[in-house]
Amino acid sequence: MAAEISFRTEHDLLGDRDVPAHVYYGVHTLRALENFPITGSPISVYPELIKALACIKQAAAQANHELGLLDATRCDAIVGACAELLEGKLHDQFVVDVIQGGAGTSTNMNANEVIANRALELLGKKKGEYQYLHPNEQVNIGQSTNDVYPSALKVATWFGILGLIDAMAVLRRAFEAKSLEFKDVLKMGRTQLQDAVPMTLGQEFSTYAVMLGEDEERLREAALLICEINMGATAIGTGITAHPDYAPLILKHLKEITGIPLVTAPNLIEATQDCGAFVQLSGVLKRVAVKLSKTCNDLRLLSSGPRAGLGEINLPPMQAGSSIMPGKVNPVIPEVVNQIAFEVIGNDVTVSFAAEAGQLQLNAFEPIIAHSLFKSVTHLRNGCLTLAERCVKGITANEAHLRASVENSIGIVTALNPYIGYANATSVAMEAHATGGRVYDIVLERGLLSEQQLDEILKPEVLTQPTPLYMPPKQ
Amino acid sequence: MAAEISFRTEHDLLGDRDVPAHVYYGVHTLRALENFPITGSPISVYPELIKALACIKQAAAQANHELGLLDATRCDAIVGACAELLEGKLHDQFVVDVIQGGAGTSTNMNANEVIANRALELLGKKKGEYQYLHPNEQVNIGQSTNDVYPSALKVATWFGILGLIDAMAVLRRAFEAKSLEFKDVLKMGRTQLQDAVPMTLGQEFSTYAVMLGEDEERLREAALLICEINMGATAIGTGITAHPDYAPLILKHLKEITGIPLVTAPNLIEATQDCGAFVQLSGVLKRVAVKLSKTCNDLRLLSSGPRAGLGEINLPPMQAGSSIMPGKVNPVIPEVVNQIAFEVIGNDVTVSFAAEAGQLQLNAFEPIIAHSLFKSVTHLRNGCLTLAERCVKGITANEAHLRASVENSIGIVTALNPYIGYANATSVAMEAHATGGRVYDIVLERGLLSEQQLDEILKPEVLTQPTPLYMPPKQ
Amino acid sequence: MAAEISFRTEHDLLGDRDVPAHVYYGVHTLRALENFPITGSPISVYPELIKALACIKQAAAQANHELGLLDATRCDAIVGACAELLEGKLHDQFVVDVIQGGAGTSTNMNANEVIANRALELLGKKKGEYQYLHPNEQVNIGQSTNDVYPSALKVATWFGILGLIDAMAVLRRAFEAKSLEFKDVLKMGRTQLQDAVPMTLGQEFSTYAVMLGEDEERLREAALLICEINMGATAIGTGITAHPDYAPLILKHLKEITGIPLVTAPNLIEATQDCGAFVQLSGVLKRVAVKLSKTCNDLRLLSSGPRAGLGEINLPPMQAGSSIMPGKVNPVIPEVVNQIAFEVIGNDVTVSFAAEAGQLQLNAFEPIIAHSLFKSVTHLRNGCLTLAERCVKGITANEAHLRASVENSIGIVTALNPYIGYANATSVAMEAHATGGRVYDIVLERGLLSEQQLDEILKPEVLTQPTPLYMPPKQ
Amino acid sequence: MAAEISFRTEHDLLGDRDVPAHVYYGVHTLRALENFPITGSPISVYPELIKALACIKQAAAQANHELGLLDATRCDAIVGACAELLEGKLHDQFVVDVIQGGAGTSTNMNANEVIANRALELLGKKKGEYQYLHPNEQVNIGQSTNDVYPSALKVATWFGILGLIDAMAVLRRAFEAKSLEFKDVLKMGRTQLQDAVPMTLGQEFSTYAVMLGEDEERLREAALLICEINMGATAIGTGITAHPDYAPLILKHLKEITGIPLVTAPNLIEATQDCGAFVQLSGVLKRVAVKLSKTCNDLRLLSSGPRAGLGEINLPPMQAGSSIMPGKVNPVIPEVVNQIAFEVIGNDVTVSFAAEAGQLQLNAFEPIIAHSLFKSVTHLRNGCLTLAERCVKGITANEAHLRASVENSIGIVTALNPYIGYANATSVAMEAHATGGRVYDIVLERGLLSEQQLDEILKPEVLTQPTPLYMPPKQ
Repeated sequence: MAAEISFRTEHDLLGDRDVPAHVYYGVHTLRALENFPITGSPISVYPELIKALACIKQAAAQANHELGLLDATRCDAIVGACAELLEGKLHDQFVVDVIQGGAGTSTNMNANEVIANRALELLGKKKGEYQYLHPNEQVNIGQSTNDVYPSALKVATWFGILGLIDAMAVLRRAFEAKSLEFKDVLKMGRTQLQDAVPMTLGQEFSTYAVMLGEDEERLREAALLICEINMGATAIGTGITAHPDYAPLILKHLKEITGIPLVTAPNLIEATQDCGAFVQLSGVLKRVAVKLSKTCNDLRLLSSGPRAGLGEINLPPMQAGSSIMPGKVNPVIPEVVNQIAFEVIGNDVTVSFAAEAGQLQLNAFEPIIAHSLFKSVTHLRNGCLTLAERCVKGITANEAHLRASVENSIGIVTALNPYIGYANATSVAMEAHATGGRVYDIVLERGLLSEQQLDEILKPEVLTQPTPLYMPPKQ
Repeated sequence: MAAEISFRTEHDLLGDRDVPAHVYYGVHTLRALENFPITGSPISVYPELIKALACIKQAAAQANHELGLLDATRCDAIVGACAELLEGKLHDQFVVDVIQGGAGTSTNMNANEVIANRALELLGKKKGEYQYLHPNEQVNIGQSTNDVYPSALKVATWFGILGLIDAMAVLRRAFEAKSLEFKDVLKMGRTQLQDAVPMTLGQEFSTYAVMLGEDEERLREAALLICEINMGATAIGTGITAHPDYAPLILKHLKEITGIPLVTAPNLIEATQDCGAFVQLSGVLKRVAVKLSKTCNDLRLLSSGPRAGLGEINLPPMQAGSSIMPGKVNPVIPEVVNQIAFEVIGNDVTVSFAAEAGQLQLNAFEPIIAHSLFKSVTHLRNGCLTLAERCVKGITANEAHLRASVENSIGIVTALNPYIGYANATSVAMEAHATGGRVYDIVLERGLLSEQQLDEILKPEVLTQPTPLYMPPKQ
Repeated sequence: MAAEISFRTEHDLLGDRDVPAHVYYGVHTLRALENFPITGSPISVYPELIKALACIKQAAAQANHELGLLDATRCDAIVGACAELLEGKLHDQFVVDVIQGGAGTSTNMNANEVIANRALELLGKKKGEYQYLHPNEQVNIGQSTNDVYPSALKVATWFGILGLIDAMAVLRRAFEAKSLEFKDVLKMGRTQLQDAVPMTLGQEFSTYAVMLGEDEERLREAALLICEINMGATAIGTGITAHPDYAPLILKHLKEITGIPLVTAPNLIEATQDCGAFVQLSGVLKRVAVKLSKTCNDLRLLSSGPRAGLGEINLPPMQAGSSIMPGKVNPVIPEVVNQIAFEVIGNDVTVSFAAEAGQLQLNAFEPIIAHSLFKSVTHLRNGCLTLAERCVKGITANEAHLRASVENSIGIVTALNPYIGYANATSVAMEAHATGGRVYDIVLERGLLSEQQLDEILKPEVLTQPTPLYMPPKQ
Repeated sequence: MAAEISFRTEHDLLGDRDVPAHVYYGVHTLRALENFPITGSPISVYPELIKALACIKQAAAQANHELGLLDATRCDAIVGACAELLEGKLHDQFVVDVIQGGAGTSTNMNANEVIANRALELLGKKKGEYQYLHPNEQVNIGQSTNDVYPSALKVATWFGILGLIDAMAVLRRAFEAKSLEFKDVLKMGRTQLQDAVPMTLGQEFSTYAVMLGEDEERLREAALLICEINMGATAIGTGITAHPDYAPLILKHLKEITGIPLVTAPNLIEATQDCGAFVQLSGVLKRVAVKLSKTCNDLRLLSSGPRAGLGEINLPPMQAGSSIMPGKVNPVIPEVVNQIAFEVIGNDVTVSFAAEAGQLQLNAFEPIIAHSLFKSVTHLRNGCLTLAERCVKGITANEAHLRASVENSIGIVTALNPYIGYANATSVAMEAHATGGRVYDIVLERGLLSEQQLDEILKPEVLTQPTPLYMPPKQ
């Protein structure tokens, strides 16, 4: 069977190597494949990265053509190959490991080689006939890994963030819908896990929606930082070997191809070594994770029970909860989202380490930054959609139980504070605590307020928002 | 001697306690002092926090007076006490530990008590005569720890950030000055610690300035998030016991007192439980730390030597470097800044943990968030000033050594790429590497370019920025 | 008044400096004081570090005396000065900032200078008369910061760990006592916050004790790693300038002085650059923190209420919980311990960063490692003692409520599994859930088991431990 | 084509579901597959986890057979199915996402179902005929996810650690070989990146070997903690539904099957909720990562150049380093290992978060702990092997350059310290620094030592280890 496999010979700085004839990648990719047997996951697991590389290679070809550095035939062939990548073809030829040395060089080489070989075919040539179209000398003209790679990460990340924001909006709207549904369900609010004062379940659910809305805003801001690319920087940002008109030209084309409001960094040397935008983005993703995890903690707590827990809400059952305890149902969806959050927070530390480790004119550790960010963005997105569809939309409230908890609460004494004073209120609270009695009854017994006054002060709409005092307080 | 100490008796929910007669804090603070013997550092180590509390208590008194809930005499006394705190007086009365349970209640109580007792004195009363002015019933009217504490943190943090931004600007300007000073010093740029292509030392130093400038921008954005306060929220954000006009009134006063563009959060329930702005700020501080650390790594690397290192720049000697090695001088200032950065990055993880641990209507762990942020802001500020004054301003360049390194470099072959092609260039590079020869000489020997052409192509101003090709390339 | 301050002149590599005549530290310390205005906290906040330095300086003097490198008079004077430090004297002379550059050089210099100047006084000389006894040439003979500083950290840390283990044992015993007290209190166990199967509150509290016991073991193991010191390494571990007999001699003396089972590292070059033992210790402290935090989370959850929470246990009230809600009491002690845990986990990240940043023959960032570890050890120790004394010892159980929760639970159906089968058990559970009925009643109604059988199977001692089946199961 | 797919109907607590007839998993797995669309990676990416589950299910069947709870026929069928899993068969049936809610229930259910269905086939029945052999009622007898899952993680992790230790030993031996090869190559040691004192390159490489050896020891210790399992705990550790003899019996079988020195935890309730061993292991992996990263930093620094760097060693070239700079070769192998280290350190934070989030009787977040640990162990293993084979073994030294750096160094003045005193030595050092002269020449010129004395004192073997003074020092 081995007889069927044929090879072509390619050459690099280390010598000659046989490359399987049918593959589109070349000798540089082959070396990288052998050098980085780390995770077993190829970069093709991030399709947006492959597409981003195609966008940049296409824009570069078009810019170089306009500068007279690439003829129309070759330019068209490159553009044709890139178009196929954008359609999702040939992604299986992007085989370099997601964790790789070389600051992304192997990813860039992989793209150059696949595009060159596919373009050669479109030109009627064979793969490997680089005398007609060379991965480095034509596909890569005016470029360096050090501008292509971070710029591709940014384009890919932009699309990832858009997807995440959409998913967050789905989740936010699910919470908003529940907030409306539960707007009249009175319950006890809690601080430090201790009964505090009344609120509505709708108010409680609105906070989850508001948090998400704010985080969507923060992500949009972080996405704008991602729009600053460094194409034209070449090796270290001085633009060596690049034509002065090249940077604006490639920007123009890349904006057209991607639709992203990209800008060229004002200082390309700084932009080539700087990972600040990635660190910032990772920090915002961590923020999203922290708050999403808090929300899931709350959902799990409020639905604890069914009998020995808070039992305020019911999450929709999604699967049997136990291999030993019959009838047990667990909050599996919030739990999986909590775990995504923990992963994202850990990823942020990885990003910090990698960013801090940059030296002089380049950060060699952008591949792990990319891997961490792509995981965070993708998993958060999946988590938000799952939480919306498989949990939040099906939540129901135990209204009677919630209302009773307010009526029996000691915490409503806070509402009486302005009328009977802090000292009286404390004394009532402590009697209620000691005897198990109701605040309402004790206040009546003590003659501190009349039934009518109490009913007025303890109306739900009074308890759950600022209101003018029912009667002038005695100072 | 003990006979000289006299006491007053105060009362709380747990019973009576003797409080030393001379102290301005009361029973609640005393309990907290005993309950939290953790770090030994009192909250007074953060003077901006004490002042922020004073601003809020003053604004509350003024708002309550306008609402008719506090008479003019008492209001004036409270304002008078707050004024003293703003002058830096009585800070030693803020004795609660920086790490404390209770979600900041003890800090708020400490403020209420000190202000009440000082106000009592201003009213001609004695400390502890709370029948005339009560810490909780008057100083704290319309407030809860749950709105006072996070709002005070925000006011305090705002001033801290301003100070940090100023310090970063001092450091940035020091780098900018060096960038100008070194603008003609040619050197080799490096990627992945390997010789890459030429640049100027001025370009290198400009990147540090640009990074700082960007970080200043990011901090300003984060500061704006900090401006959203929740005064009027009271216990959980429903505004229970607060007058509907109270929130806008206290905002008006607080803006006047502080000069900060504060706004009231649109959803007070969400704002009361949310730590998002702190998480975001911490993430930005981490970003600053990561990049500052990278900069210090570079400074230490570039100044390595004096003989067996890179030896490109000299840091000003600040102290003897060794107790055993005579004449050794070490990069102690960048080293201390690296360590500040490591601390800040760790603090960010602490903040993430504390923020994630919030439950339901409140985050009980804001004290450790505050402690972490205050440390990060303060130490970064001190680090930036120290780095500017004690290191960057005194840096000198070893110009001759740097210029020689370019002339002897193999990396300049990259500049010849467009003229002699990648294949020839690689061959020249490999001969230079093997023989130790100079690229210039080898290219001449091989007749690839003339002396005149080489001199034109290798001019510093050509090497360090994008330039049109010297002559039309042969494609 | 300024006229009263007199100065002496000292000299270093940078020139002459006036040092206040009354201080025991010298020019090197003075430079460091000026160079590192970072936290405002001097190293004297860690008395065990000062004492550890004294131990090492004393041991060095004795070793050097035996080697004939230091005469008896000077040796005695140094030993006398060290003895005073061990008594806690002169600690205020250790003024260098806890965050400092220079790899600990300034701390070592500070020790050399204070000891030299105090020893000079003991010799009848004046401070600064270094011709009679020199900080570097005598106090520091055979030493380098690079062996003194890490060794001193280890000695100091050892004592810190012992203190922490003691505090953990106090807390463990408090939990053990409660475990016994609550051994017959039946309650529902929970998994994933959902009711699971019965257990006793004593069993629940025993887990906290067992966790602590295991962590004490892990700390003891980590402490043993800390015992490996590198005295004799001098600058980089090659032992340059050190006599071959010096390392074993100083070890002998240091073991005698400290009582610690110290050993000399087998490879001194490795030991001089390695921070592995500190990283390991920090990891174990993080483990302690993680589990302590989990325990505090449980305590807060179990005591949630008083009416709308789980209400299973009561924490002793330690202070009023709210400035607005009368009678509210919060779990302030577990909350403060949670926050210590968050700090320790953050510190661990700082330690990782600092350790990873070591380069070649030394880690220059040990000061921040030391600062992080000292904080973690001290705060954890204070947290454990506080939790034991101010919380755990006063915990009470709401027995009736707990027992009722078992009787009303659906979870006891698990115990019937082996008798009625998983299918029947699930059906019973679902009926109970739908109707609100009791499992006991439903099983009886359905005739699945008799009253006698049920009572036998549901006996507390049967429910809470493995037991043979009450009757042969039908397979 | 869809017509060809047939289904069987299975039932669970949520109702009936069609399961594709050809798959071995059942309804519970199907639900989980739908519930957790997070990463796209199924648990089968960790073959050791699948094998560990098989070991436990086999041991349980054998124990239950001995207890008379499972007949021989069914027991044999289960054992047969498990044997196939141990051979690597049917792993593609383990389809649940690596990040999953439910505390591992879905993983356990997946195992129960695949084993039951394969065992049914071995019994001559069809998949889904659970009346003959039931996933829960037979494969899972006496078990709960809460003991099976953590125990399986421990068995799987044990084998992972063994593999990692082997890989570390390969790397250690590569460093040891280089240490011998370079034992006579004199070079300058450095502290704080500044020239310090001489050493040999062999000594430098020996430190990397020693560090690895110590880390292997620490991993072995951590592995022993992993040996404590909780089989027999069932739901929460009380052993409900388990026979008293079951725990010792399953332990016996599991030890035989796995060959691991497993023990049953003394307190099963504690063991069921505790993640301490995983946190500890993660901490040790972080330690390994930190030191490996430091080692890689050193290799990259020492090989920096080729002309403008330290240029002390040469890493073997593994691939072309740049798409733009001809002839550039980069340290890609150390770079990839650095990135693995950064990932592991981030994973450790994830583990801390997940462990801290455990509540009451269970930690629901063990799946993300498992995922994090498996990644860390696998990637570190691959990184160590890659570093050994593709980098360390091919390292060469630039001996002449290294020797010259010692001869020209100022640092050798430290060796003269005991002969000419610290003051003279400092003065010589400063003259050398100012004039660029050699220490040897300056000392001779000043007549401080004779040529013979200098040659004796500066012999390599004297410079690089402790030696008695060449002549008695003048005190």
